[in-house]
Amino acid sequence: MTSSVEQILHLVEEAIHRLEFPNQPTNLYEPIRYTLGLGGKRMRPVLVVLAHEMFGGNSADAIPAAMAVEVFHNFTLLHDDLMDKAPLRRGKSTVHHKWSPEIAILSGDAMFVKSCQLISQCRSARKESALQIFLSTAMEVCEGQQYDMDFEQMDTVTVPQYLDMIRLKTAVLLGASLSIGATLAGADERDVQNLYDFGVNLGTAFQLQDDILDVFGDEEKFGKQVGGDILANKKTFLLLRAFEKAKVEDLENLHFWIRGNTWSEKHTAQEKVAAVKSIYTNLGIREEAEHKMDELYSIAEDRLDQLHLSAEQTTVLRQLANQLMERQH
Amino acid sequence: MTSSVEQILHLVEEAIHRLEFPNQPTNLYEPIRYTLGLGGKRMRPVLVVLAHEMFGGNSADAIPAAMAVEVFHNFTLLHDDLMDKAPLRRGKSTVHHKWSPEIAILSGDAMFVKSCQLISQCRSARKESALQIFLSTAMEVCEGQQYDMDFEQMDTVTVPQYLDMIRLKTAVLLGASLSIGATLAGADERDVQNLYDFGVNLGTAFQLQDDILDVFGDEEKFGKQVGGDILANKKTFLLLRAFEKAKVEDLENLHFWIRGNTWSEKHTAQEKVAAVKSIYTNLGIREEAEHKMDELYSIAEDRLDQLHLSAEQTTVLRQLANQLMERQH
Repeated sequence: MTSSVEQILHLVEEAIHRLEFPNQPTNLYEPIRYTLGLGGKRMRPVLVVLAHEMFGGNSADAIPAAMAVEVFHNFTLLHDDLMDKAPLRRGKSTVHHKWSPEIAILSGDAMFVKSCQLISQCRSARKESALQIFLSTAMEVCEGQQYDMDFEQMDTVTVPQYLDMIRLKTAVLLGASLSIGATLAGADERDVQNLYDFGVNLGTAFQLQDDILDVFGDEEKFGKQVGGDILANKKTFLLLRAFEKAKVEDLENLHFWIRGNTWSEKHTAQEKVAAVKSIYTNLGIREEAEHKMDELYSIAEDRLDQLHLSAEQTTVLRQLANQLMERQH
Repeated sequence: MTSSVEQILHLVEEAIHRLEFPNQPTNLYEPIRYTLGLGGKRMRPVLVVLAHEMFGGNSADAIPAAMAVEVFHNFTLLHDDLMDKAPLRRGKSTVHHKWSPEIAILSGDAMFVKSCQLISQCRSARKESALQIFLSTAMEVCEGQQYDMDFEQMDTVTVPQYLDMIRLKTAVLLGASLSIGATLAGADERDVQNLYDFGVNLGTAFQLQDDILDVFGDEEKFGKQVGGDILANKKTFLLLRAFEKAKVEDLENLHFWIRGNTWSEKHTAQEKVAAVKSIYTNLGIREEAEHKMDELYSIAEDRLDQLHLSAEQTTVLRQLANQLMERQH
């Protein structure tokens, strides 16, 4: 029997709380404590522990690896926010904003060191494999962030390029969290691979859902302003597909709202969001995005079905996946 | 018989040349290739290989660890240059200057990932210990850089604080390079510790020498403009000791040249360097710095004497240390 998501989350939160950092130098360690205290869904460490339990491991044994993944994830957020010049994260000042860019660079570096120390603290005959997964994933996350920055400067980005970017930047770490947990518990190679593929496909679907909700979501439920991606001219699945499909008038309009900068002379931000949204609707972009999302989700489910585990052993993970994808079935 | 420094250096340069990075994303990997191609003394990887050979290891087996240390060192230079806003490194554009700050952050991060991958590629029964030394040293280097940045903003820094900062920022990685090499070759714990202490004391002495040469060095031999630290009001051993020792007129003069900013109205940079230099001479600061340097060097030599190795086995390391300290004996 695996623990419930709530039980695991409780364990994870406690472990984060117990993470220790020296007091000095304050400017190195205080931003780390601050970042880890900002909260978040703690999805990745929960996946590590859950996968570990699914393959018969004891949840406590997975905690160092779970912490490694969470500290690593928060390190990437810290550096990404600096690179993106974002002033806020989870409603609070980002580290470079509250302290300085220099402190954000260095405390981020120290978080990465800490995450490596944590993963190497695991006690398992398979810790070497877990470390390899962790490090190759870390490199892929760097690649994903670089592509994301590159895409901002590029005129044309294809949908496959975009999907590959979000796979690297977001999805592989979800896959890695699961496969690290399973590996440490001694799962066999095929199960580890299937669990990894499940996580990567689910993570990519999850990012597409985020793209869709940013435009079509319920503002209250979504928790942030709808249309943010449109206002930032962000090259999401929706926008890239719209540029691919749009002809004549729609294409002209897209250029006016996205590529040009004259719209703001006579129009409000709200009008821009509404206009682009209506182009998406004309072109059936939402349906396409949902179709792609469903496709990825189906692949993910299929990989779960292939695990050498009973239906009962995968129940909690299935529930969690449904919950993440906001599905009721 | 250990190889000569020249032989090891040749091996190290070849190995750096053989390091492989993917082509894509170009903006992530090209700055890494560029940074590693800038040259440098390759002191740290040479120390890894040399220590490995001293304890009977095969030089080829130490190469992944040697590369780990060199890639890590270059990662710290890359991020430090960004934090210090330095436009040049080894006479060439720094990465943040040639590309962008964002690219410098991310390619630095990727270099650190690569260095962890390299250290974990070592084949040795003791690789776990080597990894632990590597990671705890990495954390200390971050601490050292943070103290260095903190000191710039502080009015008073004590000499022990300064020595601790240069120990963390510079010296521990020299100690770690030696102890990682020795550990992988199976050296016993006391030898590893003595070799580490040798490296840390030598590294601290080396940094003091750099402080002295910056003021009293022969410009041609030193390879950079003499007086740079004075012009930057850098809190070196010399300046900190001068502030501690100076009284009445000397103290007033120090405040005029270092703490105030009115000197530039009537004086040239050369006059500032000459004035501070003459205060150092009045106060006998150079002698003090040289005395401290000799003291550290003696401790280093003592640790070397304590190794369970023949005089012959430590000859090359002794020569290298003398060479670094520009000694003729």
